[in-house]
Amino acid sequence: MNHSMADIARVVEGTVEGDPALAVSGVEQIECAAPGQMTFIGGPAYVSLWSTSKASAALVSRDLAVEPGPGRALVRVKDADLAMARVLELFEPPAPFQAAGVHPHATVDATAEIGEGATIGPGCYVGAGARIGAGSRLHANVTVLDETRIGTRCILWPGVVVRERCTIGNGVILHPQVSIGADGFGYRPSADGRGLVKIPHIGTVVLGDGVEIGANSCVDRGKFSATSIGAGTKIDNLVQIGHNCRIGRCCVIAACTGVAGSVTMGDGVMVGGCVAIRDHLTIGSGARIGGGSGLMADVAPGQTVAGAPATESRQALRQWAALRKLPDVLRDLKR
Amino acid sequence: MNHSMADIARVVEGTVEGDPALAVSGVEQIECAAPGQMTFIGGPAYVSLWSTSKASAALVSRDLAVEPGPGRALVRVKDADLAMARVLELFEPPAPFQAAGVHPHATVDATAEIGEGATIGPGCYVGAGARIGAGSRLHANVTVLDETRIGTRCILWPGVVVRERCTIGNGVILHPQVSIGADGFGYRPSADGRGLVKIPHIGTVVLGDGVEIGANSCVDRGKFSATSIGAGTKIDNLVQIGHNCRIGRCCVIAACTGVAGSVTMGDGVMVGGCVAIRDHLTIGSGARIGGGSGLMADVAPGQTVAGAPATESRQALRQWAALRKLPDVLRDLKR
Amino acid sequence: MNHSMADIARVVEGTVEGDPALAVSGVEQIECAAPGQMTFIGGPAYVSLWSTSKASAALVSRDLAVEPGPGRALVRVKDADLAMARVLELFEPPAPFQAAGVHPHATVDATAEIGEGATIGPGCYVGAGARIGAGSRLHANVTVLDETRIGTRCILWPGVVVRERCTIGNGVILHPQVSIGADGFGYRPSADGRGLVKIPHIGTVVLGDGVEIGANSCVDRGKFSATSIGAGTKIDNLVQIGHNCRIGRCCVIAACTGVAGSVTMGDGVMVGGCVAIRDHLTIGSGARIGGGSGLMADVAPGQTVAGAPATESRQALRQWAALRKLPDVLRDLKR
Repeated sequence: MNHSMADIARVVEGTVEGDPALAVSGVEQIECAAPGQMTFIGGPAYVSLWSTSKASAALVSRDLAVEPGPGRALVRVKDADLAMARVLELFEPPAPFQAAGVHPHATVDATAEIGEGATIGPGCYVGAGARIGAGSRLHANVTVLDETRIGTRCILWPGVVVRERCTIGNGVILHPQVSIGADGFGYRPSADGRGLVKIPHIGTVVLGDGVEIGANSCVDRGKFSATSIGAGTKIDNLVQIGHNCRIGRCCVIAACTGVAGSVTMGDGVMVGGCVAIRDHLTIGSGARIGGGSGLMADVAPGQTVAGAPATESRQALRQWAALRKLPDVLRDLKR
Repeated sequence: MNHSMADIARVVEGTVEGDPALAVSGVEQIECAAPGQMTFIGGPAYVSLWSTSKASAALVSRDLAVEPGPGRALVRVKDADLAMARVLELFEPPAPFQAAGVHPHATVDATAEIGEGATIGPGCYVGAGARIGAGSRLHANVTVLDETRIGTRCILWPGVVVRERCTIGNGVILHPQVSIGADGFGYRPSADGRGLVKIPHIGTVVLGDGVEIGANSCVDRGKFSATSIGAGTKIDNLVQIGHNCRIGRCCVIAACTGVAGSVTMGDGVMVGGCVAIRDHLTIGSGARIGGGSGLMADVAPGQTVAGAPATESRQALRQWAALRKLPDVLRDLKR
Repeated sequence: MNHSMADIARVVEGTVEGDPALAVSGVEQIECAAPGQMTFIGGPAYVSLWSTSKASAALVSRDLAVEPGPGRALVRVKDADLAMARVLELFEPPAPFQAAGVHPHATVDATAEIGEGATIGPGCYVGAGARIGAGSRLHANVTVLDETRIGTRCILWPGVVVRERCTIGNGVILHPQVSIGADGFGYRPSADGRGLVKIPHIGTVVLGDGVEIGANSCVDRGKFSATSIGAGTKIDNLVQIGHNCRIGRCCVIAACTGVAGSVTMGDGVMVGGCVAIRDHLTIGSGARIGGGSGLMADVAPGQTVAGAPATESRQALRQWAALRKLPDVLRDLKR
């Protein structure tokens, strides 16, 4: 799986400095790279490491002052970050092996339908009336319950659970231990007022095409109707999406964020890590929610917020600056 | 599974406006409902949507000004929210199918006891000396280790792990990927002072009757003695309950909350989402902890707290309001 | 498994008060202990409970004023906490039973290597070219994908997933549902600017010897190169370690903490629970991060920080105190 500088330059739309026939076998960080590997000079801080690095080649931004040196090569690009993503695609190793079809240690209900070229790994369970689309891959120990439909070319990593009657689009990726379609969190007081009675959650979950959900994240089913996540939305690890949320298309939600029930999010919303979002809020398209924020009110389309309680981000920065000065101000006032 | 207005009115103790024989096949949100479905008018905001909704019927609060219109019906109730919970019970679809008994692809130790009518799904493992109560259902790929007792009529969804020597009450629900009885987080310095030695956690976990624990949540076993969760307590997804916590009865703990070790919680405590609770704190019965709070001190019975560090909630609101004004106040003071 | 006071005193380097031949069968909290059990008097608050406790014996700090009383015994030690850890080691029950070798309901690829004395539980899957070290134990329903190496004497609790090409050291403990080696969270804009394209994560995860990772925690694989966790580091439940983090040796990271991508942590760093750490930060060796903090900037070696945004901890305490006074100060200023 070696690739020459010429090949790489073509893929990243860059220019070679040094021998275009020089070939590399993989990609490594500049401090760790071995001869025969390519590295990445994304900014001035890395330029000084190039002379001592053992890497044979590097991707480098057009504006950085660095020479290939003897026997080494550079590929100059406009945007080194983006180019690196392309190079990683070139070097992507094959996925873990799994023979096509249903593994003899899997359990597939007789009424389930398994699409052409789909693979059902050892230890998997596929329930009654479930449908797995063509070319989808269920790694070991995945559970898909009754009447759920999985689209085509999906990847369900080990330990994933998708409960009954959910609809998963095409090209969806669910990382290990994702839970889709667990009951939402809802109770009513018992008749004697001394306890809680579970409210049945008879709704479902609908994930659009190209959705990706990180390890150990959860999307709860609707109380009725569906919890839905729009096409192209990407969710990181350990994220909670409560029942009846409606998340738009192409949103990005970073790790450890909790979205309570019935939140509506527009398209292209960016949510940082460790954010807490209260139930029933509406977050407009294109909004940006800073990491660690606590949302207690709606966010307008395109607005950027931060802090807890969250506020417009410049205002949050002013509050933080004021708070840093506050102890000394109070001391001075007292004097 | 159709139900007539008359049937529904009887269940929710409401009155029919329109044809009592009109029957509906399910429940849907007002904007999404199709003919033959029932919807829900919980407040004035939904009244205006009724005329354009395709729903054939609606549950509606007594005090809302809305007419059924031709060929449609309303069921008037005192509390539409509570009535909807009852209606959902009527329309609850059957649980995913699983034949009674031990699935041939399950592994049950010869010394384990499986109660009458219990079902052990494919890929499950039940260890030596474990007991599964009558009527309990272990879905696919559940693991119950040695000497653990599961009560009657419990539901363990796929991927649940209950480690050895734990005691689970009757009617307990554990959602996908719940971990019960993992070792608590405790170490002692090594003799050379340069590392950490694991402290054995020889205690257990005891869950009371009717406890429900959400997907990917964790309850660690005690260092010695038990981590215990009282009857009727409901815990949402991605919640951590540390070793030796003693949680009371009928508490409600929302998603993404972390409860550190040895916390004592009374009965009926309500904890919002994304709350952080420091170790060894005591939280009195009936206390309410606002979402996103950071608890660093005990909370008195019945007290409501918010913020990080958490304080009495009216005081927290005053602090937030003051902080919002602070940047301008400091600017004016400087002048 | 009874142990006499004399035995226990030897192990904890303590002295017996009362009958050295008195034997106990286990350890329990002072309020719950039964005759024949030992308890623990760690501070003055527990002294008054001793006279009414049914425990037959207690570990007690040297400086506490308490007498054994008739038919009971005390073991006096310098540090009762540390001594208790030792006593728990004495009373640790055997681990859940699993016969050596590969369980007939496990699936092990023909090209995988299983070390001497290793046990592969029912429902496990071990992929092509994977290696499981001597004496390591995979409990039920563990998945280890292709080419991953697990060291010797590791314990993988049920439901753990380790993806392909990762390297796990010796003596590593992974608690239920841990995910190692899921793809990092990284995308590039699509050519039409309207969507996101997944960046392949072709790197790996490397866990040092003696690492322990809590239930439902995640360590993502590197984009390229490895996400690494140094020997002896202990990570609690529901923790996220993003792609390309480099965590040092003997760090302690408490539950519900999120560490974003490319964070570098030195050795011996202590991180409290529910901490949010922004991407690309550097945290020096010996730093301490208070529970609930939100880190938005680097932390110097040995520094203690708290708050969100996190600041030096004495400064954080001053800010919190000032914020508590702020509402009244603003009211007074207005007057």
